[in-house]
Amino acid sequence: MRNIKLVIEYDGTNYHGWQVQTNALTIQEVIENKIGIMTQEQVRLIASGRTDAGVHALGQVASFKTSSSLPADVLRHGLNRLLPEDIAIQSAVEVDEHFHPQFEAKRKTYRYVILNRERRSALHRNYSWHLPQPLDLAAMRDASSLLMGKQDFSSFQAADPDPPDPVREVFKSEWSVEEKDFLFFTIEADGFLKHMVRNIVGTLAEIGQGRISREEFSAILGARDRRRAGMTAPPRGLFLLEVKY
Amino acid sequence: MRNIKLVIEYDGTNYHGWQVQTNALTIQEVIENKIGIMTQEQVRLIASGRTDAGVHALGQVASFKTSSSLPADVLRHGLNRLLPEDIAIQSAVEVDEHFHPQFEAKRKTYRYVILNRERRSALHRNYSWHLPQPLDLAAMRDASSLLMGKQDFSSFQAADPDPPDPVREVFKSEWSVEEKDFLFFTIEADGFLKHMVRNIVGTLAEIGQGRISREEFSAILGARDRRRAGMTAPPRGLFLLEVKY
Repeated sequence: MRNIKLVIEYDGTNYHGWQVQTNALTIQEVIENKIGIMTQEQVRLIASGRTDAGVHALGQVASFKTSSSLPADVLRHGLNRLLPEDIAIQSAVEVDEHFHPQFEAKRKTYRYVILNRERRSALHRNYSWHLPQPLDLAAMRDASSLLMGKQDFSSFQAADPDPPDPVREVFKSEWSVEEKDFLFFTIEADGFLKHMVRNIVGTLAEIGQGRISREEFSAILGARDRRRAGMTAPPRGLFLLEVKY
Repeated sequence: MRNIKLVIEYDGTNYHGWQVQTNALTIQEVIENKIGIMTQEQVRLIASGRTDAGVHALGQVASFKTSSSLPADVLRHGLNRLLPEDIAIQSAVEVDEHFHPQFEAKRKTYRYVILNRERRSALHRNYSWHLPQPLDLAAMRDASSLLMGKQDFSSFQAADPDPPDPVREVFKSEWSVEEKDFLFFTIEADGFLKHMVRNIVGTLAEIGQGRISREEFSAILGARDRRRAGMTAPPRGLFLLEVKY
């Protein structure tokens, strides 16, 4: 069996997230269906990780096994013809049969976009979190630096009956302003817990609003207790940018 | 009667353009309906000009007369609550009763976005024209400089049984690359003919593809004949940025 690795861009607005579920349209299901049309096989896509409903990706990575002999480039072209406009295959390459998109991921990068102005935006409505009150960016930058390094991120993990190891190493945790009124948070780590980026951004936004201090943020991080952290930022502002192997 | 001037942002994807028409949802109709709910009057919105189906706006200007005494700010807040997410009122101010958004517009600025890379984009699908073959940006820049100044733009005007004066003055006609793979064309003029920006961009794209030379472009412009120009670029890449008074 050949192993094909895909890099996938998608607009998550109209999907119930990445992972296949009953009675709801997911990105995984749509792509598996189109691969099935091309290969005449029922395939199973394995992704670097799930994304929630409404979350977007510029570089989600997924792979599937196939006995089809279609060249990877032909698969990419064919899939892009068959897929709906809100899902696009950026690359398809044949990889080692043992390659596993989740277990072998070394680093992942997410971006979160906040629109910080009074008026809401029609054009960015599905791609940003609108926070109308002015935010203290310096305080948010200062607090986000506390996330750097190898730490227990339990405080930013969604409730999970069978939680994974909550220790992750963060390599980048930065705010930038690339466009007027838009704040971009970029975070790179060796892995992320469920809702981790959204819980971090929600808590940092409360710092920006002056409702949580740097000391309180530090205490939240140290508490290893989800109940201590702030709100969960909405999915629409979140983008999976890149997975490195 | 008071005269209220609105600056409006909209995502044109799901509408049949600005102007009210039978059996098709338009932006004008949706806003008029919500103003009606707020003022308890049937109002008529007058815009700076129409936009085609699929065309977006960051700064469309429209005004309406009302005998309602609601402050302009209350109207703006209320409308933004009532309007669908893909239409947002950026400002509402009371203006002179004789203000007319179309006749008094001094300058308008449009932006056109081209995505120039092989792979299509899921996230930018409704906000750019995807041209996969490499474009000669220097040639496009060179040709677009020919559009500057006061000229007869008949060659870039859509067929019209009752065509307006085709002479317009162009103050800016520039290409920029602000993001990898994206080409932005910005054009500012004292007014635009029907489909003028889309016909110009379609023709400039053919220059970028090496199918039309600078000399031919100059001849097309001089011919004052629509049949000579290139294709019409699709509406999804076009944004009405600003109207100046």
